[in-house]
Amino acid sequence: MITYVNTIWVVLAAAMVLFMEGGFSLLEAGLVRTKNAVNVTMKIFVDLTIGALAFWLIGFGMMFGKDAFGFIGTNLFGAPEHISLSLKLPSAAFVLFQIGFAVACISIISGAVAERMSFKAYIVTAALICTIVYPLSGHWIWNSDGWLAKLGMKDFAGSAAIHAVGGFAAFAMAKLLGPRKGRFNSDGSVNVFAPSNIPLASAGAFILWFGWFAFNAGSTLDAANTSLASIALNTMLAGASGGTTALFLTMKKFGKADPSMTINGVLSGLVAITAGCAFVSQWSAIVIGAMSGIIVIYATLLVDSVKVDDPVGAVAVHGFNGIFGTIAVGLFDTTEGLLTTGHVSLFLVQLLGAAVVIVWGVLGGTLMAKVCEKTVGLRATEREEEEGLDMAYHGIPAYNELERFTDLPTGLYDFEETTGIVVAPAGNKKALG
Amino acid sequence: MITYVNTIWVVLAAAMVLFMEGGFSLLEAGLVRTKNAVNVTMKIFVDLTIGALAFWLIGFGMMFGKDAFGFIGTNLFGAPEHISLSLKLPSAAFVLFQIGFAVACISIISGAVAERMSFKAYIVTAALICTIVYPLSGHWIWNSDGWLAKLGMKDFAGSAAIHAVGGFAAFAMAKLLGPRKGRFNSDGSVNVFAPSNIPLASAGAFILWFGWFAFNAGSTLDAANTSLASIALNTMLAGASGGTTALFLTMKKFGKADPSMTINGVLSGLVAITAGCAFVSQWSAIVIGAMSGIIVIYATLLVDSVKVDDPVGAVAVHGFNGIFGTIAVGLFDTTEGLLTTGHVSLFLVQLLGAAVVIVWGVLGGTLMAKVCEKTVGLRATEREEEEGLDMAYHGIPAYNELERFTDLPTGLYDFEETTGIVVAPAGNKKALG
Amino acid sequence: MITYVNTIWVVLAAAMVLFMEGGFSLLEAGLVRTKNAVNVTMKIFVDLTIGALAFWLIGFGMMFGKDAFGFIGTNLFGAPEHISLSLKLPSAAFVLFQIGFAVACISIISGAVAERMSFKAYIVTAALICTIVYPLSGHWIWNSDGWLAKLGMKDFAGSAAIHAVGGFAAFAMAKLLGPRKGRFNSDGSVNVFAPSNIPLASAGAFILWFGWFAFNAGSTLDAANTSLASIALNTMLAGASGGTTALFLTMKKFGKADPSMTINGVLSGLVAITAGCAFVSQWSAIVIGAMSGIIVIYATLLVDSVKVDDPVGAVAVHGFNGIFGTIAVGLFDTTEGLLTTGHVSLFLVQLLGAAVVIVWGVLGGTLMAKVCEKTVGLRATEREEEEGLDMAYHGIPAYNELERFTDLPTGLYDFEETTGIVVAPAGNKKALG
Repeated sequence: MITYVNTIWVVLAAAMVLFMEGGFSLLEAGLVRTKNAVNVTMKIFVDLTIGALAFWLIGFGMMFGKDAFGFIGTNLFGAPEHISLSLKLPSAAFVLFQIGFAVACISIISGAVAERMSFKAYIVTAALICTIVYPLSGHWIWNSDGWLAKLGMKDFAGSAAIHAVGGFAAFAMAKLLGPRKGRFNSDGSVNVFAPSNIPLASAGAFILWFGWFAFNAGSTLDAANTSLASIALNTMLAGASGGTTALFLTMKKFGKADPSMTINGVLSGLVAITAGCAFVSQWSAIVIGAMSGIIVIYATLLVDSVKVDDPVGAVAVHGFNGIFGTIAVGLFDTTEGLLTTGHVSLFLVQLLGAAVVIVWGVLGGTLMAKVCEKTVGLRATEREEEEGLDMAYHGIPAYNELERFTDLPTGLYDFEETTGIVVAPAGNKKALG
Repeated sequence: MITYVNTIWVVLAAAMVLFMEGGFSLLEAGLVRTKNAVNVTMKIFVDLTIGALAFWLIGFGMMFGKDAFGFIGTNLFGAPEHISLSLKLPSAAFVLFQIGFAVACISIISGAVAERMSFKAYIVTAALICTIVYPLSGHWIWNSDGWLAKLGMKDFAGSAAIHAVGGFAAFAMAKLLGPRKGRFNSDGSVNVFAPSNIPLASAGAFILWFGWFAFNAGSTLDAANTSLASIALNTMLAGASGGTTALFLTMKKFGKADPSMTINGVLSGLVAITAGCAFVSQWSAIVIGAMSGIIVIYATLLVDSVKVDDPVGAVAVHGFNGIFGTIAVGLFDTTEGLLTTGHVSLFLVQLLGAAVVIVWGVLGGTLMAKVCEKTVGLRATEREEEEGLDMAYHGIPAYNELERFTDLPTGLYDFEETTGIVVAPAGNKKALG
Repeated sequence: MITYVNTIWVVLAAAMVLFMEGGFSLLEAGLVRTKNAVNVTMKIFVDLTIGALAFWLIGFGMMFGKDAFGFIGTNLFGAPEHISLSLKLPSAAFVLFQIGFAVACISIISGAVAERMSFKAYIVTAALICTIVYPLSGHWIWNSDGWLAKLGMKDFAGSAAIHAVGGFAAFAMAKLLGPRKGRFNSDGSVNVFAPSNIPLASAGAFILWFGWFAFNAGSTLDAANTSLASIALNTMLAGASGGTTALFLTMKKFGKADPSMTINGVLSGLVAITAGCAFVSQWSAIVIGAMSGIIVIYATLLVDSVKVDDPVGAVAVHGFNGIFGTIAVGLFDTTEGLLTTGHVSLFLVQLLGAAVVIVWGVLGGTLMAKVCEKTVGLRATEREEEEGLDMAYHGIPAYNELERFTDLPTGLYDFEETTGIVVAPAGNKKALG
């Protein structure tokens, strides 16, 4: 009977986690400039298609297969139909849930490299992170024989294994890609390009928050573990307090209640509680969330100050707060936390784990960027970047709402040479033959 | 075992109810004018952050704590980790679900006060409704020792406790705020400002409908109560019939199938069945929904006629149909309804309960408005209202899709004096240093 | 106990399937031209209101009522409160889930007839498909006494019963409606009107994908059938491979990674696996998905070539891939598939079933179109089509974001003659009295 309950629990949780991709898509489409909104959306489709298949085929085995040297998995490639788990759960449910985690890790990167990365390079990146970068550190942390797992590192739902790894891989790739044209001024000042669609970005954040309940509570993989209720409540409280501190800090610091920062404050609270949601008290969850909402703002300014261009703040949200969340377990864990119990060992293990994922994330990101450079090329051409990646790679603008008011530049959709099809916006004479 | 099933049921239901905030955000952002779309969205973030924490800290205890005089709760503040419930359910799941209800109550108000309320006043309002206004009447109706509960009032999922209280508090605040500039003409005619984004508003309605299944069926808090299936079906049927009558009435009355009214018709059906979903037959659910779709249109005209400006129709949807739904239980209850069984006692209790929530809602709304007036100020300045609350309070427009076609007014984003950061839209020379 | 688990499983799955309507709404609003975005959205409300009630009242009985001649149901009209099912499930949960399927079938049609169908004709169509067209073939396939069911046809979640029937009814109606003005050139070339809002269309696709897990896995109607996990995984894999092949093919064929085609590739994989998700292996799911992603592109060109105008590609996605998915069961079924086991009988039954739904779909679509022609009229007037159905039928544009930059044409919202209400956009002098 418990197997039946676990099955629907994990399948529903997996569906919610996979739905978070829709959240990433709207969040990023809303935060980037209009001329790149289609491209970020298409990158999310790459995550859910190519990325998901790559993880299923190779990454899953690397991560959960029979351990070698505490370092890497060696079987279960192509996720076989029946894997024996220690859980009362059909393996297909476990595989589906893990696919949701892997695609989340890619999507973290997609935002940081937005508006100037080559689309083909992104496809290569999605395949590489799902086959190597994410599964390897995931193996160390989550495979029972992984070397960090054996040291006793605690990362319940992936502040380190997913968010920090993704966030620091994103940092390395954004660094190597270089900033968007016009982002930094010679005098060292920063130009913040205005987000193109705040209501869409917010909708993305609400979808992410919804999915996060499944991301964290679903990680129990077992309905008999009724602490999944307090995990969900901790998730709510940390997201709420992260948003609260970020909101008030922007009002005080910028004189405006800044939408992007408030959204990122909420997401930071959710990222930071992901490692500890099962290990800390409600009050600790609120403290962790509140601190993450402050961290995200200063981390954003720090990333700017080192001239790394992260259009959506993914490094500050997922990288810095993934690390903070990992360390926070060592501080607030109810049974062996430094602040709560005075034990130091867990804290040191969490510090080590945090350091490892930073190093590995940066290495992985650098590796992927280099592979792209040597193969399909990493960065869009200057012309493509100026025109916008939407027209350059996808031949269509995100919004075509002006059709009633203006003729778009002629030839905007001219595919004739390749397909013989004339694609033209309504109202354009061409469309009327 | 049933505890395991209840835990995932209530946690999933709570996640869906909290996701309804995304629905409110999109609905309101789509119904207001573009220049205030960011502001309504930010108010929903206030609900989910400050509002949620305020309810967790104080409101929950006021509502569900040990009763004093049938009037107020006196313990359980800061929702302790383990509360003994009469339910086979971890208390954290119950707390999370109740947070979802509290934030829904605030969000009802956010729409009615849209486009002219000070942002700080909204923060104060969110905190006050979650700590005092909603929990107090909620205690009377839903705490087993509440005085209305003891009289036998039936309000299964909150037509009275959530929707009517929120709706009439919204009415009082909208009245005291005064109408938006240009809303009413000297000759008494009304200017209806066109909604800015119908597809977004509709998306919000679909999310709300999705969440409503959990809002009503989840209120069983117990999977062993398999009547949750007919509760969900009643919810569907009432929403469908509410939308149907509103759609046809607008076609007949206005000569157009009006989107806002059809959306509000669906929501009215959902609001009206919320009290009775567990107590009435499928046919009664359809009748209740059908009537609510007619009520919402005339209630909207009535609110206009008394010169109260409710930009999204929240008073008509949640206030009037919350009251109608409360009374409808007295009429259609299968065991003691006036029309179904001839009993009059329940009907009278429901009438009393309805009267109480109207009075308390109006009092609560007035109280909150007065507190804002005396502290942070209630209404935006005339200049802020004209410019739009998005630029005034958040320094950014909702949509920046025109960047390719026009330079926005210079200085639009000038934060220099406060932060040294130049925030400029892409394409603006400034952005290119 | 299992009844409790089944109840929450099916109710949650039903809610997710009904939420797919939000997906259809955003997908279609994003793919059509701006001037018809409100209209497609309103049609989805018609599906969820009038369509849902029509199915509940009549269609459900036609489909699941006591069989007559293997052809039609004869009782259970107005879905009575307690129907005896062979399932351990309250009948209300089953009815709600089936309502979700019925409205999905209508929504398939709404896209294909977009931008030129009369709104009243659509209301009639929604009522007819839910009372006759869908329930009749549904009875043949899914009522245990249906003639196709008795032959052993396998259609687990409705590639044939829902998608193919809807897709070919859509084909017939689109054919009889005729193309949108300016769609086809005298020289035989095709004008593809640019989608108006890619981020919204993508959001719709993500919602549909999310709901599809419930659409397929929920069709078990039984949590004790833990194969629902592999059903969900097959759904994921097929959607991913469908999107992958469509994405790569457009990059190769058109030189651009085309968003609409990638979205339709994902949806095609989901449609194609719907019949076989419970009967095929993971590898077969990937192959089926991959083929569907190629089929959708050539099917789209084929539909164009016969001068049938399908604005969103519904015929290619749901019609062609619904048929492919039905036949694919005969090829890949693990126990009696032609390719997997060499058995031919199931393959022939699936071919017959596929042929039947094509014929019935075309007949049903023709029937509905003729009924509309004879009653309310089928097609919008030329003036309504040019103006756009949003202003013609709903009196409001989808997006009113330009209010700050331009006065919309005067009289745009003039309702005075019908209601005495002046509806005017902000900024319009009229609005300021």
